[in-house]
Amino acid sequence: MPRIGIILGSDSDLPVLEKGFKLVEQLGLEFELRILSAHRTHEAVTEFINSFDEKGIDVVIAGAGKAAHLPGVIAAQTVKPVIGLPIRASLDGVDALYSIVQMPGGIPVATVGINASDNAVLLAAQMLALKYPEVTANLEAHRVEMRDVVLEKDRKIQEKYNK
Amino acid sequence: MPRIGIILGSDSDLPVLEKGFKLVEQLGLEFELRILSAHRTHEAVTEFINSFDEKGIDVVIAGAGKAAHLPGVIAAQTVKPVIGLPIRASLDGVDALYSIVQMPGGIPVATVGINASDNAVLLAAQMLALKYPEVTANLEAHRVEMRDVVLEKDRKIQEKYNK
Amino acid sequence: MPRIGIILGSDSDLPVLEKGFKLVEQLGLEFELRILSAHRTHEAVTEFINSFDEKGIDVVIAGAGKAAHLPGVIAAQTVKPVIGLPIRASLDGVDALYSIVQMPGGIPVATVGINASDNAVLLAAQMLALKYPEVTANLEAHRVEMRDVVLEKDRKIQEKYNK
Amino acid sequence: MPRIGIILGSDSDLPVLEKGFKLVEQLGLEFELRILSAHRTHEAVTEFINSFDEKGIDVVIAGAGKAAHLPGVIAAQTVKPVIGLPIRASLDGVDALYSIVQMPGGIPVATVGINASDNAVLLAAQMLALKYPEVTANLEAHRVEMRDVVLEKDRKIQEKYNK
Amino acid sequence: MPRIGIILGSDSDLPVLEKGFKLVEQLGLEFELRILSAHRTHEAVTEFINSFDEKGIDVVIAGAGKAAHLPGVIAAQTVKPVIGLPIRASLDGVDALYSIVQMPGGIPVATVGINASDNAVLLAAQMLALKYPEVTANLEAHRVEMRDVVLEKDRKIQEKYNK
Amino acid sequence: MPRIGIILGSDSDLPVLEKGFKLVEQLGLEFELRILSAHRTHEAVTEFINSFDEKGIDVVIAGAGKAAHLPGVIAAQTVKPVIGLPIRASLDGVDALYSIVQMPGGIPVATVGINASDNAVLLAAQMLALKYPEVTANLEAHRVEMRDVVLEKDRKIQEKYNK
Amino acid sequence: MPRIGIILGSDSDLPVLEKGFKLVEQLGLEFELRILSAHRTHEAVTEFINSFDEKGIDVVIAGAGKAAHLPGVIAAQTVKPVIGLPIRASLDGVDALYSIVQMPGGIPVATVGINASDNAVLLAAQMLALKYPEVTANLEAHRVEMRDVVLEKDRKIQEKYNK
Amino acid sequence: MPRIGIILGSDSDLPVLEKGFKLVEQLGLEFELRILSAHRTHEAVTEFINSFDEKGIDVVIAGAGKAAHLPGVIAAQTVKPVIGLPIRASLDGVDALYSIVQMPGGIPVATVGINASDNAVLLAAQMLALKYPEVTANLEAHRVEMRDVVLEKDRKIQEKYNK
Repeated sequence: MPRIGIILGSDSDLPVLEKGFKLVEQLGLEFELRILSAHRTHEAVTEFINSFDEKGIDVVIAGAGKAAHLPGVIAAQTVKPVIGLPIRASLDGVDALYSIVQMPGGIPVATVGINASDNAVLLAAQMLALKYPEVTANLEAHRVEMRDVVLEKDRKIQEKYNK
Repeated sequence: MPRIGIILGSDSDLPVLEKGFKLVEQLGLEFELRILSAHRTHEAVTEFINSFDEKGIDVVIAGAGKAAHLPGVIAAQTVKPVIGLPIRASLDGVDALYSIVQMPGGIPVATVGINASDNAVLLAAQMLALKYPEVTANLEAHRVEMRDVVLEKDRKIQEKYNK
Repeated sequence: MPRIGIILGSDSDLPVLEKGFKLVEQLGLEFELRILSAHRTHEAVTEFINSFDEKGIDVVIAGAGKAAHLPGVIAAQTVKPVIGLPIRASLDGVDALYSIVQMPGGIPVATVGINASDNAVLLAAQMLALKYPEVTANLEAHRVEMRDVVLEKDRKIQEKYNK
Repeated sequence: MPRIGIILGSDSDLPVLEKGFKLVEQLGLEFELRILSAHRTHEAVTEFINSFDEKGIDVVIAGAGKAAHLPGVIAAQTVKPVIGLPIRASLDGVDALYSIVQMPGGIPVATVGINASDNAVLLAAQMLALKYPEVTANLEAHRVEMRDVVLEKDRKIQEKYNK
Repeated sequence: MPRIGIILGSDSDLPVLEKGFKLVEQLGLEFELRILSAHRTHEAVTEFINSFDEKGIDVVIAGAGKAAHLPGVIAAQTVKPVIGLPIRASLDGVDALYSIVQMPGGIPVATVGINASDNAVLLAAQMLALKYPEVTANLEAHRVEMRDVVLEKDRKIQEKYNK
Repeated sequence: MPRIGIILGSDSDLPVLEKGFKLVEQLGLEFELRILSAHRTHEAVTEFINSFDEKGIDVVIAGAGKAAHLPGVIAAQTVKPVIGLPIRASLDGVDALYSIVQMPGGIPVATVGINASDNAVLLAAQMLALKYPEVTANLEAHRVEMRDVVLEKDRKIQEKYNK
Repeated sequence: MPRIGIILGSDSDLPVLEKGFKLVEQLGLEFELRILSAHRTHEAVTEFINSFDEKGIDVVIAGAGKAAHLPGVIAAQTVKPVIGLPIRASLDGVDALYSIVQMPGGIPVATVGINASDNAVLLAAQMLALKYPEVTANLEAHRVEMRDVVLEKDRKIQEKYNK
Repeated sequence: MPRIGIILGSDSDLPVLEKGFKLVEQLGLEFELRILSAHRTHEAVTEFINSFDEKGIDVVIAGAGKAAHLPGVIAAQTVKPVIGLPIRASLDGVDALYSIVQMPGGIPVATVGINASDNAVLLAAQMLALKYPEVTANLEAHRVEMRDVVLEKDRKIQEKYNK
C-alpha cells in the first residue's frame, strides 16, 4: 500500500491532523506517524528519514508551528517530496507559513494552507498517484463526493431561500 | 521523457522562470510552456488540462501574481499535482502567496516560495521521480553539486578571512 | 423586481449574510441564493452564470473566505458587475480580501469590506438603481433611516453625559 | 453618452490613471475629471457631487493614497455607486486599500485593486451597462480582444519553447 | 473649565472610552460627548464643529474603527487639534490606525494607540495645559500617582520573589 | 515667539524634515533643532528636556526610525505635548509607527504619519494656537492657501480634460 | 550563584513568565524580579541598573508589550547583555517585537520569541555559562531531558497509530 | 583572544556584514567566518559546531535570509549562545525575522534587527565580556565614542539651525 510518513513537531498539534487522518483511509493509503522535533531530536529525525526506503515511505508530510523548521530540515535530507503543513501557534500562523514556504533555492517544500491537514493528505495522494495509478480513482471519487456534498447543500438552500 | 506542464498567467512573468528553465534539462525533464490566463482564457486553460494525459504531462507548475487564481483554477480540474508559484507583482508577492496557498479544503496546491521557479521545478522533479526512478539520480547529483558550490565558496572565504 | 444573484462558497458562511438579507427586502429587491464552490462545482457555477439573463439577474454578490477565487472566477464569465465579499475564515480575512480585490487587469471585482454583507447588498442596490430608478428612493430612505438612528443615539448619549 | 465622474485626491496620481483613460473611449464612455481633496476642498467635493444629475454622471471613480478618505466621503453624499481606487503612495498601498474598502456598514465603496485604474473604468462600464445596454457589446468586445492578445502571446511562446 | 469634545463613530465603542472617562475628572477637565458618524451624519458633524468656539471646546477626541474617517473629516473642518483614537473593530485595529494616522499633508490628526482612550484624554489635557496652566499640576500629580502605583507593585513583587 | 523643540534621532533623517521646516516660518513659529539619540545620548536628551521652560519650548516634535523610542522617552520626562514622527528606515516605517503610537497607558505620544514632517509642524502649530491665538490666523491662512492650490490644479485639469 | 535580573513593564505580564521561572532553578541560577516601567519609573530603572555589579547581576531579561521600550532603555544604560522578551498585549505581539528587535545600531537587544519566557531564561543561562562553566552541564542536561520527553511522546504515538 | 564564529547562509550576504566586521577588531575580538547552508551543507555545519571548543569559539553569529533556518539549526546542536541575524532577501526581511526569532521553546536564538550586523557583533562582545572582562572596557569606550559622534553632530546642527 502507498505510504505517507507524517511528522509533527509537537503532539499538541495532533488535533490539526484530524481532517487529514480521515482522508488517508478513504484514499487507500497508509501512514506512519511520528512526533519529532527538528531541534530537540534531530538525530531521530535523520534516523527516520534514513528508514524511508525500507519502510516504503514515498512522500512526507511535516507539520510545525512558529519558526517551523521541521519540513525544511527534512527536505534537506531527502529528495522525496516533503509537504509542509504550517500550524497556527502564534501570529495567526504567518510565522509558520513563511518559515516553511520561503525555503532557499535548491530545497523545495510543497506548502499547503495554514492548518490544512486535509489538503496535505490530498496532495500526498496526488503525488503517490503518479506511482500508484489506483490512487487516481480514489482521488476522482473524492472529488465527485465533494461536488455532490456542495450540490446537495445548494439544493437545500435553494428550496429554503429561492421561491 | 517525464514532462511538466508550465502555465504562466502573463508573459511578463517569463524572467521569473529563468532559474527554473535552467534546471529542467539538467534534471532530465521536458516541459511544455503556455501563457494562459485563468480569467481571460479560461476555455483554453481547460483545453490544455484535458490534453495532459495525451501529452504525457504528469505534473503542472502554474505561476501568477496578485490575486493569483491560476494554480487553484487548474487544480480544480485535475487530480494531477499542481505546483503554485506566487509571483511578486504587488504587495511584495504576499497577495499572490495567500491566493495560492490558502486554498479551501479539497483542492490542494503545492506552493513554493515567492518567485522561486527553481524550487518549483525541483519539486516537480521530486514528484516525477516517484514514477520515473531515473530522475532520482539527477536530483541527488544536483544536491551534491549545490553542496560542492557552497563548500568551494566556503573554502575561498576561509582563505581570505581566517588566518 | 430587480434581482441579485448571491453565491456563497460554503454554507458555513451563511451567518455572515444575515445583515445583508435584512436589507434586500427593505430596498425592494429580490435575490436568488446559491451555495457553489469555484473549485468543487465549477460546472454548476458556469451553469448559474449562463442563466443570469433568463432569470433577470443583473448583479452578483459572491462571498468566499481564504484563497477566495469565487468572485473572480464568476467575473471572468460575465460582464455583469460582480461584488466580492471577503469572508473572515483565516488570517483575519486578509487572505480573502487580497484574493478578491487584487484581480488582474481586465476582470474587475467590486470588493466590499471583510464580512460586510450589508454593504454588498447596498452596493448591489446602488448599481441596480441605475436601471431601476425606483430603487433610488429606497436607498435614500435607508440613508435617512440610518442617519436618524445615529441622531437618536446621539440624543440619548447627550442626555446621559452632557449636562 | 454614459458618463463617469473621476476624482483624484492629487494631480501627482494622474499617471496611475493612464491605463484607465485608454479604456474610456474604447468602451464608448465619457468622463469628467476633477482634482479635489476630501480634506482641503470639501466644499468643492460637495458641489461636484450635487452636479452629478445635471451633468449626467451616473458612476464615480475616486482615487486616493495613504489615509484615502475621498471615496468614502463622496459615497456618504450620494447613492450613486462610488468606485474606490487605492493608490500606492506609502505602505505599498495597504493603507489606502484599508481606508477605502473597510467602510462602515451603510456606505459601501466598490473597491478595486491597488493602482488598478483599468479595472476601475471597466467596473464603471459594467455598472453603466445596466442602464445603457449598448455598453455591454463594448465590454464583450474588450473581453474578446483581451483573450486574443493572450492567445497570440501563447501561440508565440509555444512556437519558441515547445517543439 | 477646559473642555474636550469627544466624538465616537458608534455607541458600540463606548466601553473603549471607560479608561478615558475616568481620567477627565481627575485632570480637572470637562467633556461633551457625541455619537456622530462621519458618513451617516456628516451635517451634524459639521454643526458640532461650528459650535466649538461657543461651547469653549478647544480640543477634540474622535474615535472610530475600520476605515476610520471621522478624525480626519473633523480635522479638515477646524484648526483646533484633533486627537484620533483608532478603535479595534476588525483587522486588530490596523485598518483604523492607518486610516487615522496616514493623513495627507496639510491636515494632521494626533493619533494615539489602538483603543488607548486614556492616552487620548491625557494628550488632550497636555494640549489644554498650554492654555490653562492649572492643568499642568494635575498632569504632574497623575504622573506621580502612576509612578507610585508601579513602585508599590514592585515593592510587593520584591517581597514575594526576592529574598 | 511660540517655539517648538525638534529632536531627531539621527542627522541622516534631516531630509525628511524639509517639508516641515518650510512651514515653521510661514506659521509664525520658531524652532530649536537637536540631533540626539534616546539610547546613545540619554543624558543630553534629559538635559534638553529640562531646559524647555527656560527656552520657552511648549511643544516637542521627535522623529526617529526603526525601534523609535525617542518620542516615548521624551514624553516620559515632560507633560508638554510630544509629537512623534515615525521615519521610514526599515519595514516601510511600520516598525517606527508601532514603536511610537502604541505607547503604554499614561504616557501619550501624538503620532503623525510616516515621514509626515509637514503634519508634525502643523499639529505643533495647532497646539500652540491654544496658547498663542495669533497662530490661528496663520493656520487658517495656510488652509485657504492649500485649498486654492488644489482648486487651481483642478481648474487646469478641467481645461485640459473636460470639454 | 549566577544571577539574572528580570524586569517586567507591568505585573499583569507575570503569567507570561511562568515557563521561565520554572527553568531558573533547574538551571542552577538565581534571579531578582522587578516591576518597573521605562516611562513611569525611569529613575528606578536607572537605579536598578546601577546596582547590577553590586548584586552580581550579569544578564538582564526585560519583558514588555505594545511599544516595548523597556529592553532598549535598559540596554542603553549598561553593556551587560539585555534579553528582550516581547509580550503579546496588542497586534499579536508584533508591535512589541518590532519595538524590541529593531534597535538602532550600537545598542543591541537579544530578542527572543513573543511570550517566550522559557527561551529568555535559557538564553540567559547560555550567556552565564560563558562565565560560570558549571551552568553548561545543566543546559546540556536540560537538552537531554527535552529530547527524552519528545522521544517518549513519539513512542506512545507510534504504539497508538503505527501497527 | 575571544573568538566569534560567524556563519552566513550565502556569500551574497557578505555586504550586510560590513558594519559588523569593522567593529570586531575595535572591540578586541577575533572571528572565524564560514559560508555554510543549513540545508545544502548540513554535515559541514555540524562539523564546524563540533570544532567550537577546540577553536575557542564561545559565541556564534548566524545570518540568513528568507526561511532562515541556519541560526536555529545551529542552536539545536550547541548550548553556546547563537545570535541570529535576519537578512533582508524578500518580504522586507520579515520572513527571516520570524524564522529566526519565533523558535520553539527550548532552543533560543538571540535575535538582532534585520541586517543589523553591527548589533550582532556588539551583542557577541557583550556576551564574551562576561568571560573576558577586558572586553567590557572596549564596549564602554565604543559607547563613549558613539555618544561623542552624536554630540558633535548635534553641535554642528545647533550652530547651523539655532540662533
